[in-house]
Amino acid sequence: MMRTVHVELGERSYPIYIDSGLLPKAAAYLIKHGMSMKSPHLIVTDDKVAPYHLETLRTSLEQAGFKTVVSIVKSGEGSKSLQVFEEVMTSAIQGGLDRSSSVIALGGGVVGDLAGFVAATYMRGIAFIQMPTTILAHDSSVGGKVAVNHPLAKNMIGAFHQPELVLYDLDTLKTLPPREVSAGLAEMVKHGLIKDQAFAYWCKEHAAELLALDQDALGYGLQRGVSIKAEVVSQDEREGGLRAILNLGHTIGHAIEAVAGYGEFLHGEAISIGMAGSALLAEALSRGEGLHAETTAMLKALNLPVVLPDHLKEDDLMAAMKHDKKFKEGTMIFVVPDSIGSVSIVKDIPEQLVRDILKQLRKGGEAHV
Amino acid sequence: MMRTVHVELGERSYPIYIDSGLLPKAAAYLIKHGMSMKSPHLIVTDDKVAPYHLETLRTSLEQAGFKTVVSIVKSGEGSKSLQVFEEVMTSAIQGGLDRSSSVIALGGGVVGDLAGFVAATYMRGIAFIQMPTTILAHDSSVGGKVAVNHPLAKNMIGAFHQPELVLYDLDTLKTLPPREVSAGLAEMVKHGLIKDQAFAYWCKEHAAELLALDQDALGYGLQRGVSIKAEVVSQDEREGGLRAILNLGHTIGHAIEAVAGYGEFLHGEAISIGMAGSALLAEALSRGEGLHAETTAMLKALNLPVVLPDHLKEDDLMAAMKHDKKFKEGTMIFVVPDSIGSVSIVKDIPEQLVRDILKQLRKGGEAHV
Repeated sequence: MMRTVHVELGERSYPIYIDSGLLPKAAAYLIKHGMSMKSPHLIVTDDKVAPYHLETLRTSLEQAGFKTVVSIVKSGEGSKSLQVFEEVMTSAIQGGLDRSSSVIALGGGVVGDLAGFVAATYMRGIAFIQMPTTILAHDSSVGGKVAVNHPLAKNMIGAFHQPELVLYDLDTLKTLPPREVSAGLAEMVKHGLIKDQAFAYWCKEHAAELLALDQDALGYGLQRGVSIKAEVVSQDEREGGLRAILNLGHTIGHAIEAVAGYGEFLHGEAISIGMAGSALLAEALSRGEGLHAETTAMLKALNLPVVLPDHLKEDDLMAAMKHDKKFKEGTMIFVVPDSIGSVSIVKDIPEQLVRDILKQLRKGGEAHV
Repeated sequence: MMRTVHVELGERSYPIYIDSGLLPKAAAYLIKHGMSMKSPHLIVTDDKVAPYHLETLRTSLEQAGFKTVVSIVKSGEGSKSLQVFEEVMTSAIQGGLDRSSSVIALGGGVVGDLAGFVAATYMRGIAFIQMPTTILAHDSSVGGKVAVNHPLAKNMIGAFHQPELVLYDLDTLKTLPPREVSAGLAEMVKHGLIKDQAFAYWCKEHAAELLALDQDALGYGLQRGVSIKAEVVSQDEREGGLRAILNLGHTIGHAIEAVAGYGEFLHGEAISIGMAGSALLAEALSRGEGLHAETTAMLKALNLPVVLPDHLKEDDLMAAMKHDKKFKEGTMIFVVPDSIGSVSIVKDIPEQLVRDILKQLRKGGEAHV
């Protein structure tokens, strides 16, 4: 069953197509969206995704008359580096990409962010097409945020660059390891937590089907998650204000990823712990009783971690947060829940309070009042 | 005498202030444009400009209460690399730049392009301020094109990112070596050649004053050059069509720079030879008699080269042109003069004709019919 979500951004609006069996028909969508048959298109993917899906996509495109060039990067956050970025740029130049070409991201969030930043900056910007192969990428495929990491901080080098279209083939999710399924569902439930109480509870109630990749549940969950994000992004494309609510759990989450070294935690796992922390913060600020218990119950239902491990030191986490983009003009800013399904941006959070929250989070929230 | 040119780009409009004595008053302009006193501002400059002007600028800003961070790169095109880009990014992160910070380019085109690309991509884009210290930079400070080079092709990695303001202190031009003065004037006369016959002849008639850096002549020449470019950019911010006329001389010029290795020719020298080539192409296409003689007379008056040197091989130049962004979907596109002060975009130029032009250009145009 085809589900289409339109991301409304004026001239830069684009559709997200969600269904099974889309990759073998990819060429039809490129044609529909006016992609050039004369100019080559660069498929960026990684060494884990390529064996499963690259030939399917390439065959569809080549048989329809499109020219393709391929760049396969190593799987994992390490590929979001300037060095790998330059290698993909080399493929683009050697492959003869011009201004009518596109960059196609076939993969998860890392491939999407990397390929998107290539599309945003190759010849100062060419067309970008996303073909997500993870659940997590339902989040990164909406909003046009593309980036690579700097050794000192995540996503520090990037741009806003909207795709022409997103082709979300549910069949590609079947090969995901269970840990990645859970990590992807963390962003899905996050969309409920910030803006849709019913959807947050729906995620918890349908946790078993989602974890089992039931196509109906997954199709609906992705459609609803993508729609919530699209609503927020439509109102604030360049992250001037409202859009910051999407960062629920990300301030602590990014710090966890940075301190642990990219790789130990999947992004969704880190923000799951971060969302548990945000709930503790809400309670400390007397914004909502029982939020931590409610939130962690949802996250645990999706097999997600909610406790900060001991080996991540408080001082290191604090230092990493200060490099975070949410740290503006010397004050700490957090997204804090008001209730399940609603959040606020809270400024001027004292550093000491954040340190207290980290201590509680290490004990799974047990120590909180 | 203050001359102000407004670049009209809707929300992204900005002023260019042209006068003597602006750097010591820089803080007043940052305040006028609402720059934050809380967030640090990164001054990017090079090792040739820094000894002359860095302290003047820094003192003005610090005394007014602004916080500054400095990144000094090596002078020359070599600094427009991803490696130097990453180093400047490191300074930005270590200096604590946030979303209310700005990147200030104090220098010529290389510093402007590099610092501008840092501003365009740091945290997905922060404010950018240009303080050009060369004549050539009057060109690059209008239009928002920022970029670094890929080893295989110039300006291949970049963005469109408009500055908040441009502060053009004529005093900084006094220390320019004569060769750089001439190279800068190449872009000035180019603006006459594409869109303003009277201005093109004015540049020729006032060549001696311009070369002597007479403040009145220079002030007027920069104002007019900047205004012409601003008119074109206002009509076509993202280089969809019209803006391509600004590339007069650049297809051959970029190829010369690429084949000679960045450094042998100054950019203005390379495009001077390129503009001579474009005039030959116009005559070969029967678009205008005597254009080559007229054009080269203007360029020579400004002490600019108009002959292609023997050591740059034809095949290498052709290969470099094929990597150029002006090479679209397999056909060669050139900006060709119709008369002095008017040009057209001509598509589908046969490769063999371009080879013939290169041969004529090597003989200074003597061989042409």
